[in-house]
Amino acid sequence: MALIAILPGDGIGPEVTAEARRVLEALDLPLAFESALVGGAAYHATGEPLPPETLELAHRADAILFGSVGDPSCDALERGLRPEQAILGLRKELTLFANLRPAKLFPGLEDASALRPEVARTIDLLIVRELNGDVYFGEKGMRTTAAGLRQGYDLMSYDEGEVARIAVAGFEAARRRGGRLCSVDKANVLETSQLWRDVVTEVAREYADVTLTHMYVDNAAMQLVRDPGQFDVIVTGNLFGDILSDQASMCVGSIGLLPSASLDDTGKGLYEPIHGSAPDIAGQGKANPCATILSAAMMLRHSLELPDAADRVEAAVARALVTHRTADLGGTCSTREMGDAVLGAL
Amino acid sequence: MALIAILPGDGIGPEVTAEARRVLEALDLPLAFESALVGGAAYHATGEPLPPETLELAHRADAILFGSVGDPSCDALERGLRPEQAILGLRKELTLFANLRPAKLFPGLEDASALRPEVARTIDLLIVRELNGDVYFGEKGMRTTAAGLRQGYDLMSYDEGEVARIAVAGFEAARRRGGRLCSVDKANVLETSQLWRDVVTEVAREYADVTLTHMYVDNAAMQLVRDPGQFDVIVTGNLFGDILSDQASMCVGSIGLLPSASLDDTGKGLYEPIHGSAPDIAGQGKANPCATILSAAMMLRHSLELPDAADRVEAAVARALVTHRTADLGGTCSTREMGDAVLGAL
Ligand SMILES: CC(C)[C@H](C(=O)O)[C@@H](O)C(=O)O
Ligand SMILES: CC(C)[C@H](C(=O)O)[C@@H](O)C(=O)O
Repeated sequence: MALIAILPGDGIGPEVTAEARRVLEALDLPLAFESALVGGAAYHATGEPLPPETLELAHRADAILFGSVGDPSCDALERGLRPEQAILGLRKELTLFANLRPAKLFPGLEDASALRPEVARTIDLLIVRELNGDVYFGEKGMRTTAAGLRQGYDLMSYDEGEVARIAVAGFEAARRRGGRLCSVDKANVLETSQLWRDVVTEVAREYADVTLTHMYVDNAAMQLVRDPGQFDVIVTGNLFGDILSDQASMCVGSIGLLPSASLDDTGKGLYEPIHGSAPDIAGQGKANPCATILSAAMMLRHSLELPDAADRVEAAVARALVTHRTADLGGTCSTREMGDAVLGAL
Repeated sequence: MALIAILPGDGIGPEVTAEARRVLEALDLPLAFESALVGGAAYHATGEPLPPETLELAHRADAILFGSVGDPSCDALERGLRPEQAILGLRKELTLFANLRPAKLFPGLEDASALRPEVARTIDLLIVRELNGDVYFGEKGMRTTAAGLRQGYDLMSYDEGEVARIAVAGFEAARRRGGRLCSVDKANVLETSQLWRDVVTEVAREYADVTLTHMYVDNAAMQLVRDPGQFDVIVTGNLFGDILSDQASMCVGSIGLLPSASLDDTGKGLYEPIHGSAPDIAGQGKANPCATILSAAMMLRHSLELPDAADRVEAAVARALVTHRTADLGGTCSTREMGDAVLGAL
């Protein structure tokens, strides 16, 4: 019996995780579920965005299905109490360093992308983003300069161990896919990037079957618009990965369709849609549950070693999308109706 | 008599600056020109990417027309000797802290953009990027961790003075344009961004006529694809501005059309196309000189206070583009023929 922790979080998180759970339950697999509060919801109930019980459940579970965190009513709180700390804390405490973000156009959804259909149709890429280091987790704070001015600072850094393990994740993914890995950095300006580039190049020696290229992040942002079809797997740091993966997702059309996996080196993982908590539509039954359902499919594949079940869920989502669409895709389906359509297609 | 420093640099830099100079000369204005080496070209001739004579000329000139730097034969040099140090050095030594990067679709060039024509047509935005601070200029280096691992690090920081002066540049630009300023940061993770957000909000009190919004950088990268027409002026830091402005430029179609200005607080400036040195097509007469010619127009407007001459040059480029296109826009014109077409349209 595998234990799945369900952390619905804020905004539309509870609505979309509920549909994903229904889909997992319908598969008749030996799965047990336990839920806990996280993010703003947890802060309001307990005073902490990531309470010890939630962290304990996350450690104990075999995999985590995560909704979203983010709550405008917490904007004025000190950084350590904000909802975002919950997801950053889970990634760090569970050493979930490898974030996989696939982006691919669903057939029939060409009209949802701002890109020309002939460009959008070529997109089939995977971004492998590092999640445990970079300027996200370096020493940071406010201080006063010699001239008496307030100054904010954040240290960006990577060591060779951190780069090597995410490079391996990138090469392994490229080997399973099209055999091409593009490493994105800013080595013409940053020492952190220079080390990144050196180490990725060293790791490449173990992967003679994968073609490695390097690209500066400004150029990558440009190429993702100009010709996204050129990419197979992109591996990059935490900050650049945050920006580029959201950009890539929008090239595909709706951010409401894109799942993600955050993995440690044993295959344990946290699975979440890449969209946020969307407080403006929370509680209205309008949110698209597909990204979370597809995240559950990634969980079946990467943490539970149930690739057939994963395939079934992904195929069901593709079939359901032919006839059913939520508002983000120009349709009128509710969250529950979209979930029903996926269940029907299973 | 105003003195214009011409720094052609590497790759296609000499070809495109030559055409821009011909256009400036054809205007019959009291301008004098002096050229100097910069980037890889300067390194190969003198051992330094930014020789003292070049810096001296840049200080003495009223404005600088810059081509591009970047030379693959310098890739293995230590960071301080690489071509990129020349442009970073000029920006810093001359306190050129405000980088203006307009992005707008030229009528008739809808087909050059990867975005749908109806989306591309809505783009008319200005990115105001900070150029003198951020992780670009913080303490950086390689060190060994306690565990004996190589580590690269770069300190990101801004103080309130640095943020305030670029915020003012952003608000002033918004006041001259559509009255809307969007400040882009990552305040949910970075202390540098939190200070940025606080200071921009403080400066906003002096600009009641400008509508200020804040956006996280990952969302901004998404919105620039989804609905770029929503933006008027974007103000952001050095690193985020590097990424977002290249992304925005590609939404417009060819990066060969986009100029930029880098200004100090007296109106002195360096003007450069936002494209790079394009070593693959250097010396072949294929490069599009329009971005550099439009950079010269920005120089006329911002440093030489000749707005009418600037308008004339911009109108001539628009007219020339109706009938003439270089290879980057699917045409067959050479660099010189494109320059001739602009001169003809003047
Ligand atoms: C909420 C935020 C801290 C987070 C990040 O920046 O990593 C989010 O944008 C993401 O990409 O998962
Ligand atoms: C060449 C490089 C250092 C530079 C930068 O990152 O600022 C370039 O990309 C730019 O945007 O002008």
